[in-house]
Amino acid sequence: MLEADFKYIIDTFFALFAMVLIIFMVPGFAMLEAGLVRTKNVTSVLTINVMIYAVASIAFLLIGYSLAFGSWENNSMSIWAAFMFQMAFVGKTINIMSGGVSERVRIFPLAIFAVIMGAFIYPAIVNISWGADMIAGTFLDIDMHDLAGSTVIHSTGGWALLAAILIMGSRKGRYVNGKIRVIPASNIPLVVLGAFLLWIGWFGFNGGSVGSISSIENANLVAKTIMNTNTAGLAGALIAGILMYVRYKLFDITMILNGALGGLVAVTAGPDLYNIYTPILIGAIGGALVVFAVPLFDKLELDDPVGALSVHLVNGIWGTLAVGIFVDNVSFMAQLKGVVVVAVFAFSVSFVVLFLINKITRFRAEDDAQQEGMDVNECGVEAYPEFKRAI
Amino acid sequence: MLEADFKYIIDTFFALFAMVLIIFMVPGFAMLEAGLVRTKNVTSVLTINVMIYAVASIAFLLIGYSLAFGSWENNSMSIWAAFMFQMAFVGKTINIMSGGVSERVRIFPLAIFAVIMGAFIYPAIVNISWGADMIAGTFLDIDMHDLAGSTVIHSTGGWALLAAILIMGSRKGRYVNGKIRVIPASNIPLVVLGAFLLWIGWFGFNGGSVGSISSIENANLVAKTIMNTNTAGLAGALIAGILMYVRYKLFDITMILNGALGGLVAVTAGPDLYNIYTPILIGAIGGALVVFAVPLFDKLELDDPVGALSVHLVNGIWGTLAVGIFVDNVSFMAQLKGVVVVAVFAFSVSFVVLFLINKITRFRAEDDAQQEGMDVNECGVEAYPEFKRAI
Amino acid sequence: MLEADFKYIIDTFFALFAMVLIIFMVPGFAMLEAGLVRTKNVTSVLTINVMIYAVASIAFLLIGYSLAFGSWENNSMSIWAAFMFQMAFVGKTINIMSGGVSERVRIFPLAIFAVIMGAFIYPAIVNISWGADMIAGTFLDIDMHDLAGSTVIHSTGGWALLAAILIMGSRKGRYVNGKIRVIPASNIPLVVLGAFLLWIGWFGFNGGSVGSISSIENANLVAKTIMNTNTAGLAGALIAGILMYVRYKLFDITMILNGALGGLVAVTAGPDLYNIYTPILIGAIGGALVVFAVPLFDKLELDDPVGALSVHLVNGIWGTLAVGIFVDNVSFMAQLKGVVVVAVFAFSVSFVVLFLINKITRFRAEDDAQQEGMDVNECGVEAYPEFKRAI
Repeated sequence: MLEADFKYIIDTFFALFAMVLIIFMVPGFAMLEAGLVRTKNVTSVLTINVMIYAVASIAFLLIGYSLAFGSWENNSMSIWAAFMFQMAFVGKTINIMSGGVSERVRIFPLAIFAVIMGAFIYPAIVNISWGADMIAGTFLDIDMHDLAGSTVIHSTGGWALLAAILIMGSRKGRYVNGKIRVIPASNIPLVVLGAFLLWIGWFGFNGGSVGSISSIENANLVAKTIMNTNTAGLAGALIAGILMYVRYKLFDITMILNGALGGLVAVTAGPDLYNIYTPILIGAIGGALVVFAVPLFDKLELDDPVGALSVHLVNGIWGTLAVGIFVDNVSFMAQLKGVVVVAVFAFSVSFVVLFLINKITRFRAEDDAQQEGMDVNECGVEAYPEFKRAI
Repeated sequence: MLEADFKYIIDTFFALFAMVLIIFMVPGFAMLEAGLVRTKNVTSVLTINVMIYAVASIAFLLIGYSLAFGSWENNSMSIWAAFMFQMAFVGKTINIMSGGVSERVRIFPLAIFAVIMGAFIYPAIVNISWGADMIAGTFLDIDMHDLAGSTVIHSTGGWALLAAILIMGSRKGRYVNGKIRVIPASNIPLVVLGAFLLWIGWFGFNGGSVGSISSIENANLVAKTIMNTNTAGLAGALIAGILMYVRYKLFDITMILNGALGGLVAVTAGPDLYNIYTPILIGAIGGALVVFAVPLFDKLELDDPVGALSVHLVNGIWGTLAVGIFVDNVSFMAQLKGVVVVAVFAFSVSFVVLFLINKITRFRAEDDAQQEGMDVNECGVEAYPEFKRAI
Repeated sequence: MLEADFKYIIDTFFALFAMVLIIFMVPGFAMLEAGLVRTKNVTSVLTINVMIYAVASIAFLLIGYSLAFGSWENNSMSIWAAFMFQMAFVGKTINIMSGGVSERVRIFPLAIFAVIMGAFIYPAIVNISWGADMIAGTFLDIDMHDLAGSTVIHSTGGWALLAAILIMGSRKGRYVNGKIRVIPASNIPLVVLGAFLLWIGWFGFNGGSVGSISSIENANLVAKTIMNTNTAGLAGALIAGILMYVRYKLFDITMILNGALGGLVAVTAGPDLYNIYTPILIGAIGGALVVFAVPLFDKLELDDPVGALSVHLVNGIWGTLAVGIFVDNVSFMAQLKGVVVVAVFAFSVSFVVLFLINKITRFRAEDDAQQEGMDVNECGVEAYPEFKRAI
């Protein structure tokens, strides 16, 4: 057998393996968000997650992939495996955004946004970072190291979320006369399950982004990438747990898990480049950033029920810059330029598109509908109809 | 290393990978069905799913595999990997059937049926379609293209379910004086989780059914099969969502997920043969069929709490015929013959076996037991003993 | 391509695949235990599971791995893949222990124990069994066949649990005047989900422990190992179901699942050595042992809310001895010596460490805190705040 054949076969298999892990993030986001919102909004959140996967993936199949990569060709593995791996990414940017506007966003306009994000906005960002690079040489040309998308996925989703929060406002009753009403998560086992499905999906996301496992060098790179990814998640959980315990003498599980996810986002730009100890530091800072950013966004009355701004936007930026700080031959300025270009593009385009959709069919549910719950008003299906509510 | 050795190793690894994905369908079916039934029947449904996996798999190990494939030999991969891959299939036919008679079926007679299905009925159908083909040349000889079992798995399970519904009747209080009482699902997050575990399992089911990934041609075939499988699921979800929204202005998540599953069943006969756009059509029709079939079966008073007839039987037939319609060198008549032969065999044998078991130990729980709930009467374990019931 | 390169690449990929399956055991244990305890202790149990993964894994990264294996070198696969595979094991011993002291253990002292277990105790046991074997030739030198840890993982965790129960005592109100108060599981779907995530993880645990899939011989060995692992689980579930039905005319799902887990633990020492029928016997005995051991431990007032002593300790011993009984060229006395040496070491060291930690900061929550629930007192987060409690 030719060595090229061997590589093609193994790398196709590996891309499918990585893709499957990423698809576990679909129920992962769904369970995490369903656990974090109130029971009256659980079905709505779940429906949004299913809808995003369906709508954005088909948009990416029909339009987005060609925009991002220029052509349906790949000589190093099966093009269908390469497509599936990339398709598994596209919904994530919208999941990040939709999670943060839970409990007040309407499904129909969000579906329209998912089409535009999957067909155009996300593919454009991929084009200038990982893809066909059609505008190479212009001022938008970026040259950062962002292995699996601290910026391309997580910051992009985070900027879209910031735009969405500015347009949709906070949930009814969340901030009254400068006071913050605490709204507890309704189902903690789902939060934990969702967080670990995301964590496992991250192994595929980052490991698969190496692109090949079919040489000794690449096999080592894939394994180190997965190890470093995991380490940053561990450190993020640990530091969040310690900070909460020191401050409140309580182990707040939702903060611990968001700390883990923050660490995972932070390491995502460069897990292939770090030695095995650096991710402890990067993840720990990531976890700490979540602990401090969550109350900060609340003080700014940017209402984000799942902490997505802290996890994905803040750590997407931190993680991308961290590569420039900790890796010798990576330029900090190139990283910074990548962060800024994507920030300007993702925020402004998302804002304009969300603003226009909002003019046609408002995103925000009426106060009455929010009070009654999104599930009854948007889906006609209650999540737990047989369980008597205590609150 | 010899090329044959390489192929043996890679295909063994790949079969184990695909098998693992299919095993995720065991908790997948369990969660889906546990979410769709009322809280008083949740433990019973879960117990049935665990029991089916245990009973049918051991029956297949001791008897069924030999019946289906003639011998415990395989030269292209480890026989134990080949066995595990096939074993992962066998429970599915019974899961399909048991789900549709939820909330009134007793566990003990169902366990007996699972033994017979796993040891004899399913292996016989595999024998004439994918297996040793011991009766080649007779009028039962079929020659359809059914890659991963639109007919062999899904229709078989669907026909067994139809026989079971005819014998067991509907749930107490479901149809009264021609009126249908709506019984809502009790736990929507479980429904979503279960549906996505099934979806992911489908990648292994269909991708693994290609049988080999160890050549460039097969690597492409596996990747395209998985991609097409996914696309049909996306399209099924999308069309079901659109139809429900157009009709009711509501996004009904259970119908959307059943639409996705319908699309996945429909594509299962030929995902290796379609181009990448055909599955959009096949899946969309599959999703639409579910939306229209669910109320139709209800009108016929065929009580199926999880929609299994619409998802698996209707789409198993549609998907098998679709290969004859959309693929040039596949004979529509051969597909039709396959559908009919399996229909006659699976329905009549299941009916007779179910009828006989029912004479010895009735399948249907007494009205009182149904009223009180299957959990207390069959398992002695309530699913959620601490949650106060609202209804 | 050199054959050595091929082997390195495939075995690295396979180790990563197996590792991912094992990581599913993290949410697996978490869901299983969260489903088995009362709602007021669910968040606490989940937090403990997350904490164990974070703490023990980092301790193993910084200290434990070097102690166990002597050096960070591996010539047959990527050292990072080898590390990740081993790291996936370490938390399991502590999960086994923590599950059995649920509903009264405090998180902070448990975290300290997790550090010591992950950094020192577990690595020491690995050192003399699978690892660098630094004390070869001494009386502690053991030479048993324990493929994936019936003794090294499961008995170790079980002995640590026994020590912990002796130190912490039973839950408040569990045994009053010699009477046992039955405390039902609060969420059966989570129990089933958790059990199947563990089951699937076991394929990676045992299959991956073969260490290589890159020759025809090893590919067969891996596949047979996975098949035998599964078969024992099936048999354990089946026999537990039959025993419960014969005795109570009820299918007790928690006992059936613990029977399955008992069978899985029992087969774990030698799935590579058995023919394909022996695991039926080993698993069936394993399942039966669980059914008989659970009430026995209760009679001894060793309070273990999840049945971990019966599943892991009893079957860890049984499974290790079974290799000596059923495999011709394995010495029963070598197996027995392995069981005894690990028993003495794991129990006595765990006891001393737990005793000392308990002096500094008591493990057991106050009666009032137990009454109110660990969640409010330890985490400040209720698991299901919106569901009204019936009991």
